[in-house]
Amino acid sequence: MDRSEIENWYRGLQTRFCAALEAIDEASTFGSDEWERPGGGGGDTRILSGERHIEKAAVNFSAVWGDTSPGLSEGTGVAADRFYATGVSIIVHPRNPHAPTFHANLRYFETDDGSAWFGGGADLTPHYPYEEDARHFHAVMRDACARHPVADYQAWKQACDEYFYLAHRGEARGIGGLFFDHLVDRPAEVWVFQKDLGDHLLDAYLPILTRRIHQPYGDREQRWQEVRRGRYVEFNLVWDRGTRFGLETGGRTESILASLPPRARWDYATEPAAGSPEAALLQMVRSRPRSWV
Amino acid sequence: MDRSEIENWYRGLQTRFCAALEAIDEASTFGSDEWERPGGGGGDTRILSGERHIEKAAVNFSAVWGDTSPGLSEGTGVAADRFYATGVSIIVHPRNPHAPTFHANLRYFETDDGSAWFGGGADLTPHYPYEEDARHFHAVMRDACARHPVADYQAWKQACDEYFYLAHRGEARGIGGLFFDHLVDRPAEVWVFQKDLGDHLLDAYLPILTRRIHQPYGDREQRWQEVRRGRYVEFNLVWDRGTRFGLETGGRTESILASLPPRARWDYATEPAAGSPEAALLQMVRSRPRSWV
Repeated sequence: MDRSEIENWYRGLQTRFCAALEAIDEASTFGSDEWERPGGGGGDTRILSGERHIEKAAVNFSAVWGDTSPGLSEGTGVAADRFYATGVSIIVHPRNPHAPTFHANLRYFETDDGSAWFGGGADLTPHYPYEEDARHFHAVMRDACARHPVADYQAWKQACDEYFYLAHRGEARGIGGLFFDHLVDRPAEVWVFQKDLGDHLLDAYLPILTRRIHQPYGDREQRWQEVRRGRYVEFNLVWDRGTRFGLETGGRTESILASLPPRARWDYATEPAAGSPEAALLQMVRSRPRSWV
Repeated sequence: MDRSEIENWYRGLQTRFCAALEAIDEASTFGSDEWERPGGGGGDTRILSGERHIEKAAVNFSAVWGDTSPGLSEGTGVAADRFYATGVSIIVHPRNPHAPTFHANLRYFETDDGSAWFGGGADLTPHYPYEEDARHFHAVMRDACARHPVADYQAWKQACDEYFYLAHRGEARGIGGLFFDHLVDRPAEVWVFQKDLGDHLLDAYLPILTRRIHQPYGDREQRWQEVRRGRYVEFNLVWDRGTRFGLETGGRTESILASLPPRARWDYATEPAAGSPEAALLQMVRSRPRSWV
């Protein structure tokens, strides 16, 4: 694969996504922190700390290379001497508790022993149980996969449910989406799929975002959002392999933890009232994953 | 060692500590959640969600036993078939940002192959750099150790600095204290020391707490407190062996995570203004650990 083509496309997606989120926030703009990695490569961390609809968003590009460390080998099973990795990761924490948190990641990895693969995915983490949002999101994911023989919606939907799971809570992080990794076969076709998926991430999320950000809410909804964001922190710091690998091998901490929510809360053993929308959300994430489309 | 004597003493310390914190809060009382562990034993999780000076405190007792799992063996190096563990852990998150977070833990462990040991410690996590607080806290720790030939303040102070360290931030969690583990020799004398230390935990913390909880503060100090509490979350979820071991082996999640702060915040790459008290705190936790007494 052509590294510069992939990098350029990821950078373009980053720019498009930032522009779309700025248009929605209507008040705030992304900053750009370009950084270099001592061992090779670097990135562009773009953060919006929004004043209006988007409370915090991180749209990060990186392309790094260098010698494979013992930590890298352990984390990925890579036995090569040198690696190259590029990717774009997107996370959006809207201010309105009715609007779900969005996460997506597209990445490409190469080693000097000739291995190369794509990985990535997208998933949604609602604080309130809007079934139409889950159905819309999964329909876009399913349709993106349906256009490409190399893609497998059912398998990747299941992989997403399995990955974004908080075992210590017995809870899914959200309502899932797609998760795929280590796609070594037919890279040219996978690349076409990955671009198609990237082109449709905004279609998957923006209609949901725009219909939720004007819904009224109060202290109760905000407090619940903070409690659920606490779960998001727990997942990212305890279970997410990318986050742990990055922190343990000396990655750029501020870029890695840019995914964390702006505010979070931990109340002891609080359960919402039976019959409330908050209880319905809990039931949704504690149940066997559903088939949304 | 006499298990019931140790358990009773830990329970007594729990009760004394809760009473002292309730007296300081002046408004709130601890709840008590008694729980059973399916494999054997249980505990009493006591949480105060305070309305006034103590925003959140957890004073937890547990005594558990059963078959050693593969996870337990990996986590502790234990090769025995059965284990017994009891302990009391204390964490206090005051509301006033000028008052430091306090943590202490005393524990006793036995296996059926005849091994037995004590572990524990206490440490302080300030949000603002009051040197007199650090000196007072360490003086109480040093004096407790000085009364017992089995205790070693210098070694355990250093172990505490090394343990409560956020490698991904290059920051100490706070100003340290004592940390000791796996004290297998002279258990009867270590037990006398551990009780003496437990008896002086309130002396170490309450004078600091009472002189800070009435200091004026505003939004700026509260926001900084939330940022620093974010670091506390990062340490507990990413690096703390006890927390990770508990979450990965099916411990009681709400008791394990009762240590997390009530509120936390993640702002991207914020550094306080040069010369500010917030910058002085950062310099303190980013410098080589100091000798406080």
